[in-house]
Amino acid sequence: MARPTPMSGFPEWLPEGRVVEQYVLDVLRRTFELHGFVGIETRAVEPLDQLLRKGETSKEVYVLRRLQEESTDAGADDGRAGRLGLHFDLTVPFARYVLENAGHLTFPFRRYQIQKVWRGERPQDGRFREFVQADVDVVGAGELPYHYEVELPLVIADAFAALADVGVPPVRILVNNRRVVEGFARGLGLDDVEAVLRSIDKLDKVGPAAVTELLAAQAGATVEQAAAMLELADVRGTDSAVVERVADLARRHGADDPLLSTGLAELGALLDAAGARAPGVITADLKIARGLDYYTGSVYETVLVGHEDLGSICSGGRYDSLASDGTTTYPGVGLSIGVSRLVSRLLGAGLVRPTRAVPSAVVVAVTSQETRADSERVATALRARGIAVEVAPSAAKFGKQIRYADRRGIPFVWFPATPERADADGKDGKQVSATADEVKDIRTGDQVPADPERWQPPDADRWPRVVPGESSPGIR
Amino acid sequence: MARPTPMSGFPEWLPEGRVVEQYVLDVLRRTFELHGFVGIETRAVEPLDQLLRKGETSKEVYVLRRLQEESTDAGADDGRAGRLGLHFDLTVPFARYVLENAGHLTFPFRRYQIQKVWRGERPQDGRFREFVQADVDVVGAGELPYHYEVELPLVIADAFAALADVGVPPVRILVNNRRVVEGFARGLGLDDVEAVLRSIDKLDKVGPAAVTELLAAQAGATVEQAAAMLELADVRGTDSAVVERVADLARRHGADDPLLSTGLAELGALLDAAGARAPGVITADLKIARGLDYYTGSVYETVLVGHEDLGSICSGGRYDSLASDGTTTYPGVGLSIGVSRLVSRLLGAGLVRPTRAVPSAVVVAVTSQETRADSERVATALRARGIAVEVAPSAAKFGKQIRYADRRGIPFVWFPATPERADADGKDGKQVSATADEVKDIRTGDQVPADPERWQPPDADRWPRVVPGESSPGIR
Repeated sequence: MARPTPMSGFPEWLPEGRVVEQYVLDVLRRTFELHGFVGIETRAVEPLDQLLRKGETSKEVYVLRRLQEESTDAGADDGRAGRLGLHFDLTVPFARYVLENAGHLTFPFRRYQIQKVWRGERPQDGRFREFVQADVDVVGAGELPYHYEVELPLVIADAFAALADVGVPPVRILVNNRRVVEGFARGLGLDDVEAVLRSIDKLDKVGPAAVTELLAAQAGATVEQAAAMLELADVRGTDSAVVERVADLARRHGADDPLLSTGLAELGALLDAAGARAPGVITADLKIARGLDYYTGSVYETVLVGHEDLGSICSGGRYDSLASDGTTTYPGVGLSIGVSRLVSRLLGAGLVRPTRAVPSAVVVAVTSQETRADSERVATALRARGIAVEVAPSAAKFGKQIRYADRRGIPFVWFPATPERADADGKDGKQVSATADEVKDIRTGDQVPADPERWQPPDADRWPRVVPGESSPGIR
Repeated sequence: MARPTPMSGFPEWLPEGRVVEQYVLDVLRRTFELHGFVGIETRAVEPLDQLLRKGETSKEVYVLRRLQEESTDAGADDGRAGRLGLHFDLTVPFARYVLENAGHLTFPFRRYQIQKVWRGERPQDGRFREFVQADVDVVGAGELPYHYEVELPLVIADAFAALADVGVPPVRILVNNRRVVEGFARGLGLDDVEAVLRSIDKLDKVGPAAVTELLAAQAGATVEQAAAMLELADVRGTDSAVVERVADLARRHGADDPLLSTGLAELGALLDAAGARAPGVITADLKIARGLDYYTGSVYETVLVGHEDLGSICSGGRYDSLASDGTTTYPGVGLSIGVSRLVSRLLGAGLVRPTRAVPSAVVVAVTSQETRADSERVATALRARGIAVEVAPSAAKFGKQIRYADRRGIPFVWFPATPERADADGKDGKQVSATADEVKDIRTGDQVPADPERWQPPDADRWPRVVPGESSPGIR
């Protein structure tokens, strides 16, 4: 087999990269659990008709077929019934899980879910075809109070705060509220809210002049109405001054609507809580419109500060109907972190690195093949106290065994006490007592007597740590 | 959307079940890392031609197609080039990963890998179509000493030992060595070793008489040769008496072969080490032949004691060529745990259960919607000290907030000090001081003053624990 080459769109990490990814996943899991979210996993496949309910994503779905089946009914691809596709997000499967298990769940149901998803997109524009998402949602049965729209982005803020000390740049979570934008538009007399949102969504791409034209053409907006919408979209800030500015705009333009008042009260409450609990992280940005056709209240996007070119690494919002079984509707609010996109940048830009790629803190040297059992006994004693250990692959010269550790970044080499050791050391040109175990810090060369029942490596050396890389904002 | 029903062959757990699965996965990960294995993940897909290299598994592979692509070239399914399938094990992807990244890895490479795999089998016979495997392997570049064949099953023994106290039954790891069987057969004069192995493999299913016929028909064995092979297959034991018995058999039947001597020395070394490090766990069983066509040295199967009907939950062996790039061949040894099969039995048979389904140890009550921020402050203080907390969904009567905790099995409800609390409590018929925070253990009703900066739940209540279920062998 010739050496295979990486497959575009399907990222894989070397062991060093996996240490960083695993660390990020562990921090996310721990943060979500500290906030009382229950971890679930769903199967990778859903019925194709469920995946295609929203139509527009159809091009992204990977359809599955058993090879056997394929050869017997090739060509019979017209029917979707019974066919399976890989999930392209964790929301569709979560909605199905909630309906399927509603009788066994307690609502509001707080769940997190960290899994791979697949999208059959052309990978040329840097998109992944397989990537890890970490979703966190609260779903109610029938109703869900607004305060969860305040809580959820603060959970995300907490998660990124917990990642900051390993070199992950800070995030800015941008929030908007559909009620504010819709209420403002309706107050202005613009009733085709979807068209307004679609137009505003293009602002960053095409600029205000083009959006004015779009608003006129698609939402029937006058020049004055379009100007008012653009003024709204220009509002941005981290505190309740935002609410004042919007209220002021509404007064000046005569945009009065009960939905606007509700939305502004909500947005104000979110900014107040954010100011107290995660100062500087959450910014109201009234031009955020992506997903506002789907979301019904708050909407969130998240940029990595200094890496805004990555786009949003964590998006979500409030939805009034995650699912419905005809009797009960399940509203929710949640966000989804693009873990692979984040980790890819952390590694690619040298923002975060591990201190070593392997878990082992210690290599136990082997003096002779006959005394390997002695080395194994030392390893067992160390592991029993939570120290990761491997035993050297062969009874090579100690210099070679030390190089084995060194190449892996393993800081300590343990020499068990054996009668043969003095001789073995002799080959290395160094005589030491063979009557006691000794451990060498191969970074400093320090070698000291040690008891496998008591010796502890420094905390920093026990496991690979994840630390800021050379390009992280913490390194100047 | 009507309530969906579970999909056969694609297991999903309720939150309670996921707690158990996550615990098992955490113990496996920790055990593997304590033994110095590096965690990697590979993409879910491989080129179809790589997946089908061994031919016989072709029926199990799920083939992928982008929906878009399918509609444009339906029927053009003759070419396998460039097509992708879901991996059906973690060995094929690992072999590819080793070749692809050989220049960046250090050998012997110790890796573990815990991921889902997919097999398009008919699910009626209780097989899963999607399941989690946990693989652990050591792979060398060019060579790999025998002692790794001793080490790997002992890593598995360690993992199950670590699971015993939560109610997972003990395992019995059955080992055989291809060299012993092949050497014995060749010593007898039976040179079609594959045919001999295939026949012996059927022993448990068809019995000795039928195997005698098979050996005659397929391997050309005389009655005496077949009888000798059956005597060998009958050898079973946990110590080096096994080696004596086989050597004795070989002498009696005149089966002399250097491969047999090598194999017996290896098997003896494994049993000696196992007797010292995991007494009673490893049993030599000379009839184990599954996979002996692929494996070249040791072969392992693992049964859960008392649940032998499950079949092997962890299999593997030594292979002389995991992969080869033409210049270097990579031999290895490893085992694969069928995590889903194991967890399915643990849950289905009531062997293991969690103390609760949610991470939260505490619900912080909300006295009034206006003072929710006070409750959030308490929650933040507790989380900062590693205590999982959620805040009650509404400022309902305290009785209802306590029921919220009770339904989830959350042991503690925290009442923040607020001026309103005396009134709110009053509705519950109980007056308490409103000047200090208090925490109630809702299982006992005990309620005591508490400081969010200092209070600790008992260790047993901090996180959901996984404990023996009613049917576990630990419960009499």
